[in-house]
Amino acid sequence: MRRPAHSAIVAVGMMSLSAIATAEPKSEDMSVSVIKHGTGASSVGAEENFTGKVRVQGRFQRGAPARIGGATVTFEPGARTAWHTHPLGQTLIVTSGHGFVQEWGRPAQALESGDVAWIPPGVKHWHGAAPSAEMTHVALAESQDGKSVTWMEKVSDAQYRGGNADTAKP
Amino acid sequence: MRRPAHSAIVAVGMMSLSAIATAEPKSEDMSVSVIKHGTGASSVGAEENFTGKVRVQGRFQRGAPARIGGATVTFEPGARTAWHTHPLGQTLIVTSGHGFVQEWGRPAQALESGDVAWIPPGVKHWHGAAPSAEMTHVALAESQDGKSVTWMEKVSDAQYRGGNADTAKP
Repeated sequence: MRRPAHSAIVAVGMMSLSAIATAEPKSEDMSVSVIKHGTGASSVGAEENFTGKVRVQGRFQRGAPARIGGATVTFEPGARTAWHTHPLGQTLIVTSGHGFVQEWGRPAQALESGDVAWIPPGVKHWHGAAPSAEMTHVALAESQDGKSVTWMEKVSDAQYRGGNADTAKP
Repeated sequence: MRRPAHSAIVAVGMMSLSAIATAEPKSEDMSVSVIKHGTGASSVGAEENFTGKVRVQGRFQRGAPARIGGATVTFEPGARTAWHTHPLGQTLIVTSGHGFVQEWGRPAQALESGDVAWIPPGVKHWHGAAPSAEMTHVALAESQDGKSVTWMEKVSDAQYRGGNADTAKP
């Protein structure tokens, strides 16, 4: 997932990052908080990093000593990330719909509600919806030196169709 | 979440922990993997750390440099964790049902499908199902020196009822 205002996040160093991301009062960073389904700031996946319509909600980045961050991401049918890697890996938890995750050079693997996917550090991959179904997942990545993703080229239609092959239809 | 065979995990140091937890071939640790919903090794929540019937599935612990670990946990109605803390915090992603998370000294907060809860490092809390509904969540915690949870006393019936108060019924 792309994190905007990257240089600002690096600049604040040990400050709580969630205070910046969500504009919550600082004291709340020390308490249990719940991002309710479908609430929180919503944005559209940046055109350079996604194909198709992608909605990003409830983005968070926990401050030190934690390093986990993430968001709930909804892909419309056919929508997907670009190819990318994560310095410390990524966990995807599918909460609804049907989709795929594909590692570079390997067949796509189907995803459906309740599945938990793991992408190891540095492994080039994409994820997104099936051609004829939406998919929503929570995407979580550990941040290393303020960075949690490296974006690459887009997944072409041929790659998307080829990766999904006969298993594309949910 | 309680991690069994703790001393063994500490002993292996930098070895891949997921190889131990899931008995997958080592080479697979470098590839994208998917734990399908409802599959994977299943265990029952240890009696000393839970009240009621709790099922733990798909437990994982990623090896260095990552430190995230977790499991999918299903609580039957009325079931809950004991009070506990996490050294680097915990993220809960509710995938079905209705439940609660409560911080020591604060009111319980309702949880339902799609909600994402954050428990900061060191914050004493419990989570579990509503009195009359199951809840399933994915629980994720970063491990520090091989440890991701400190268990405390159980949540008494009075604490459970008091914490939920009038919002207990989904």
